[in-house]
Amino acid sequence: MSDSSFNTVSLIRKKRENQALTEDEIHYLVQTYTDGKIPDYQMSAFLMASFLNGLNTEEAAALTNSMLHSGIVVDLDEIPGTKVDKHSTGGVGDKLSLILAPIVASCGVPVPMISGRGLGHTGGTLDKLESIPGFSVDMDLDRYKEIIKKHDLVLAGQTEEIAPADKLLYSLRDVTATVESIPLIAGSIMSKKLAEGIDALVLDVKFGSGAFMKTREDAAKLAQTLVGIGEKFGKQTIAYLTNMEQPLGNAVGNWLEVKESIDCLRGNGPEDVMEITHLLAGTMICLGKKADSVEEGIEMSKKSVGNGSAFQKWLDIVEEQGGDRSVIKKPETFVGAEYQENIVYDKDGYINEMDAHAMGMVSVELGAGRRKKEEDVDPAAGFVLHKKIGDRIKAGETFATLYTNKEETIHAAIEGMKDAISVKKKAPKPLNLVTHRVDKKGVHDFRA
Amino acid sequence: MSDSSFNTVSLIRKKRENQALTEDEIHYLVQTYTDGKIPDYQMSAFLMASFLNGLNTEEAAALTNSMLHSGIVVDLDEIPGTKVDKHSTGGVGDKLSLILAPIVASCGVPVPMISGRGLGHTGGTLDKLESIPGFSVDMDLDRYKEIIKKHDLVLAGQTEEIAPADKLLYSLRDVTATVESIPLIAGSIMSKKLAEGIDALVLDVKFGSGAFMKTREDAAKLAQTLVGIGEKFGKQTIAYLTNMEQPLGNAVGNWLEVKESIDCLRGNGPEDVMEITHLLAGTMICLGKKADSVEEGIEMSKKSVGNGSAFQKWLDIVEEQGGDRSVIKKPETFVGAEYQENIVYDKDGYINEMDAHAMGMVSVELGAGRRKKEEDVDPAAGFVLHKKIGDRIKAGETFATLYTNKEETIHAAIEGMKDAISVKKKAPKPLNLVTHRVDKKGVHDFRA
Repeated sequence: MSDSSFNTVSLIRKKRENQALTEDEIHYLVQTYTDGKIPDYQMSAFLMASFLNGLNTEEAAALTNSMLHSGIVVDLDEIPGTKVDKHSTGGVGDKLSLILAPIVASCGVPVPMISGRGLGHTGGTLDKLESIPGFSVDMDLDRYKEIIKKHDLVLAGQTEEIAPADKLLYSLRDVTATVESIPLIAGSIMSKKLAEGIDALVLDVKFGSGAFMKTREDAAKLAQTLVGIGEKFGKQTIAYLTNMEQPLGNAVGNWLEVKESIDCLRGNGPEDVMEITHLLAGTMICLGKKADSVEEGIEMSKKSVGNGSAFQKWLDIVEEQGGDRSVIKKPETFVGAEYQENIVYDKDGYINEMDAHAMGMVSVELGAGRRKKEEDVDPAAGFVLHKKIGDRIKAGETFATLYTNKEETIHAAIEGMKDAISVKKKAPKPLNLVTHRVDKKGVHDFRA
Repeated sequence: MSDSSFNTVSLIRKKRENQALTEDEIHYLVQTYTDGKIPDYQMSAFLMASFLNGLNTEEAAALTNSMLHSGIVVDLDEIPGTKVDKHSTGGVGDKLSLILAPIVASCGVPVPMISGRGLGHTGGTLDKLESIPGFSVDMDLDRYKEIIKKHDLVLAGQTEEIAPADKLLYSLRDVTATVESIPLIAGSIMSKKLAEGIDALVLDVKFGSGAFMKTREDAAKLAQTLVGIGEKFGKQTIAYLTNMEQPLGNAVGNWLEVKESIDCLRGNGPEDVMEITHLLAGTMICLGKKADSVEEGIEMSKKSVGNGSAFQKWLDIVEEQGGDRSVIKKPETFVGAEYQENIVYDKDGYINEMDAHAMGMVSVELGAGRRKKEEDVDPAAGFVLHKKIGDRIKAGETFATLYTNKEETIHAAIEGMKDAISVKKKAPKPLNLVTHRVDKKGVHDFRA
């Protein structure tokens, strides 16, 4: 259908009146906007109407499809195997990609991973990778294919060629208070993931104070929308709802998280990180047809860490992408932050709560993240937790260590970290780390 | 409070989350947008959120206040008397202002009337006035005051100095499908009316196919919002809900309506036009403290027409504003449209319905109105109805006459006019012309 058959104002009005738009109508809006022929002020009115009245699954899939095809869609058919990627909706201390990608690749499943940068309280995989001296995430399509052929793994940054419509729309949503819409978020995520050339996808949808979705109910809705879109595109998609009430693992900050990932790949990772890593990796291995069940995949994942093959894959990909493998082998040689500061607590008790969002914002202030897209991040900044929810703490005991090159931020950061924990006499109930699995059949209670 | 205390995205989010904004917050948005410091795409997202979540009376009043004070607010305190104006929400064939303004002024109530142009299916008072050869609606503030001092009446066009924020916001609403919102419409109307220097206001809120508000319920809501804002600003405000299921009177088109107004002022007006005219004029005379009741005002209005003083006032104001009074005295000397075409109907029966909106659009096609703001109007174009709802029609009888200078529009116009009427064997129930009166005490059933 030709563009001239549509009238932008009528389409905005249609969504305003809570009617569903057709695939052609959504395609017209996205394509014409991307071509610069629909002004921002009309698109933002449409986005607000979509935010408030919602988009159904068909509309969300049509939006995804239009954004996907606004740029290049990588074809990896020439590469044998079932290509599987993982996406997380973002959290504080979420370094899982760095660990599970080499694990899954070392089990023979190709992982074509394209990641983004961090914004606000959540970190981004690209920033973490780039904290490794020399590591490059910039490459053209030929190089992308070459690396994945060679290693069953590539860790790339999103280019301008991938889903440019999503980039434009996201920038507009950011300044018009239309970000937190489940179908718009889902369309944004899936348009980028489907462009990678994957055959299947595992999603880590986080909920809680440190996550984008504050409640498990919203996380479940988002997971269902994501899975629905993935399956509509013929890609097997499985999501897990995971708890982000406290930072994941102990380290928060780019290099600090790479360092913790190395510990994980060497078999010395924190329990919470490894539990989710093995579950996601096992699911990816199963979707990649190298295991008959998720349980078998989890066993393979554990074995790959145990026998050193995952760490070897990590060293190989770091070297391939220009990173300094010596610093991976000896992380203690990394030049860390100028200032380190231990934070002590002044009461006895058990840590009952941690405000992951507040802690994420502390890491931003220390230099580890961005308040605005244009800002640079400091690879060395962040903090390491020595205590987590459920741990006992004594008055005068250190519960975290800060790392920063910005001395002026230390005082507020210490106060912020103290304010972010709640210590009580009674120990809290143990956190349920993974609560649900979501697949095309629905939302299932998850028993680990 | 300084502008920098506010964050535009948070204010959009607040409205998106259906919270009420404070007066300061609304003032910040309107003022900063008018200053060009909030981009259109943020304002349109705010407008869509306001459209869908609504604005309460306080918010609507704050919006009105900010738009009002974005430009000049005329002070007519130096002119004795209670200044009263009338505003109509617009309809097809609505020439009431041309008739009641001279009536009310001739009864000693000053009427400072600033009008707008027509757009879409509804005509505008300015276009009608300008169809009088030589008549000028452009003037500066001194001249505006001078004319009203001299005649108790002025008929002016809206200038750039009056409520510029409303003009900017209306243009944006027009292209972002955010026009039909009751609080936004009310704010737009009242910001312009309150700038005129009035003490009281009578509103004609129309409902039906030819009106902006299609249902009486929506018209009642709009009327209540308008009255609420007016009273908040200390101006006594009374609204009537009137029927716009068929064109008002017989003539539709600029000069054709001026001609019908002359008939009205000479005591030969159509019944429906005169019924509403006397009611609105009587209410204005009462609000202007020249009558003790609306009923007494209506008697004065009828007397003013009967004794010729209203027509004399009309001749005086036409002359004062540069118009040719000879053509008012002898309307048959006006150079009319090149083409006149009688439309006959092919069935016997009673006219049960008239699609006033469709007829309004026919008048636009004939040249009497505008599809877009930039278009010019033809003073001579339009149509005159010889039959109205309830009238009997015989096969072959003429029910309307078209006037146009665009020959190519005639065929479609004839078909459009025929399609716009519905003829049945049974006579319809009589239309209730004025259904409700709305004042600060509420909505009252109206018995004429």
